[in-house]
Amino acid sequence: MTGYFTPDRSVEVVTGRTSATADPRTAEVVASLVEHLHAFVKDVELTQGEWQRAVDFLTATGRTCTDERQEFVLLSDVLGISMLVDAVAHPRPRGATESTVLGPFHVEGAPQRAMGDDICLDGLGESCLFEGRVLDLDGAPVAGACLDVWSDNAEGYYDVQQPDVQPRWNNRGRFITGADGRYCFRGIKPTAYPIPDDGPVGQLLAALGRSPYRPAHLHLIVTAPGFRPLVTHTFVDGDEYLGSDAVFGVKESLIATYTLTPQGPTTWRSTFDVVLAPDHPTDQPHQ
Amino acid sequence: MTGYFTPDRSVEVVTGRTSATADPRTAEVVASLVEHLHAFVKDVELTQGEWQRAVDFLTATGRTCTDERQEFVLLSDVLGISMLVDAVAHPRPRGATESTVLGPFHVEGAPQRAMGDDICLDGLGESCLFEGRVLDLDGAPVAGACLDVWSDNAEGYYDVQQPDVQPRWNNRGRFITGADGRYCFRGIKPTAYPIPDDGPVGQLLAALGRSPYRPAHLHLIVTAPGFRPLVTHTFVDGDEYLGSDAVFGVKESLIATYTLTPQGPTTWRSTFDVVLAPDHPTDQPHQ
Repeated sequence: MTGYFTPDRSVEVVTGRTSATADPRTAEVVASLVEHLHAFVKDVELTQGEWQRAVDFLTATGRTCTDERQEFVLLSDVLGISMLVDAVAHPRPRGATESTVLGPFHVEGAPQRAMGDDICLDGLGESCLFEGRVLDLDGAPVAGACLDVWSDNAEGYYDVQQPDVQPRWNNRGRFITGADGRYCFRGIKPTAYPIPDDGPVGQLLAALGRSPYRPAHLHLIVTAPGFRPLVTHTFVDGDEYLGSDAVFGVKESLIATYTLTPQGPTTWRSTFDVVLAPDHPTDQPHQ
Repeated sequence: MTGYFTPDRSVEVVTGRTSATADPRTAEVVASLVEHLHAFVKDVELTQGEWQRAVDFLTATGRTCTDERQEFVLLSDVLGISMLVDAVAHPRPRGATESTVLGPFHVEGAPQRAMGDDICLDGLGESCLFEGRVLDLDGAPVAGACLDVWSDNAEGYYDVQQPDVQPRWNNRGRFITGADGRYCFRGIKPTAYPIPDDGPVGQLLAALGRSPYRPAHLHLIVTAPGFRPLVTHTFVDGDEYLGSDAVFGVKESLIATYTLTPQGPTTWRSTFDVVLAPDHPTDQPHQ
């Protein structure tokens, strides 16, 4: 028996080529990837024509990536891989607020604002007061927590998607809690929108007969010393796309109530308490 | 129980989103891909940092693709996927010449030459006479078969890799068999070479401690009316890289003998008979 490639021994031939001096984790990840991709090719009996279409698809996906657009992240999102990685990498203790996908529209360095400020800078949309507390697992307030929040505008676009239309940092801001752990800011009730679907990922969704829409949501990254960073959303209760989020980001516990406040300074009021898990770096063996 | 994404139900949630009106084969292929990619993420407990590196790797691979270079094909090659697709898609009857990878350097439209012509146009390398017959499974000669052949030059580069150095169509040509099924042409004994390793795929091979070298080989595409097209190589017997081909293309049956011919018009003589399988289009259900 030679060491040459055969379909039956394909995985062992390929992974057997990895050097014993390679980084063990790299070797492990690549070996598993090879095993699963080979099983995929065999299971569906992938044809040469389909392989060529896959190569063309990946090439087109690469060509669609720019500094402002990450089509491979979008691909990972619509295949449920981003949500799965998040779940696998960030198991959280019971009682802690659940995480969800980061998405491609976060921008570092949003301006820090005072509690009560309005992050909506273009005056468009249904005004909303967001408020709640940042707590630990025992229900005690967390002081000095940073909430980095962002949402789309009334038309369903993030500021970075419309740099010529929206004011910079429109519907973005950072807020730091005081001793009571409370946060409160004004913005707009978020809007449901389709993910960018004019590229290869949009074509894939169309081929599968899938909707490109995401239900309306507010993004949050919540950090505090001694706690694990939390990347999550809150969703708008009753949104028609809750059951068909194109990137599978919805979790029951992340659906926030939105209450009409006809007498208040805003049209809506949304309350949501954030519960942070303690920081245990040893929980993340491969990070 | 809601229909929201959970790690346990990740595959059914994602594939359940595909519309019943989608093309059945597309739905089947994507469902299998999702199943295997999710199993991969779970098996290795892929971290967020590793996911980010995978996104960066795919993005860099896309950026490396040009009209002359297909880095995703190279990635498929070094993971053994190209060879596996070839084996799955082209099972051949016993006795027929085996296939192997096409590689990224084939060019359509090479000049047709007369039997005995020399395809080496730059006069560099060890001259070699290639000869043999094109036969059917019963050993009868196949007339009118086209052999489209190409190899690298004495330095290990194909003409398309050195457009400013090598004559166009250097070491390429097409030959049509007569009634005796015989072919014969002159060229050079091929040279072992590394696949292009200055991009992301080269970095992957380096991280795995793998060699980028391919053993010396001559490429052939053999076509004839009534027969299945054959994409293959012949390898140079005794080449030091036969056991470590970076793209896993070697098969025992494709290793050709190279005999020194001190008295002849060439330094080497290589004989190889090509046996074609009959054309049964119904053998390829998904093509």
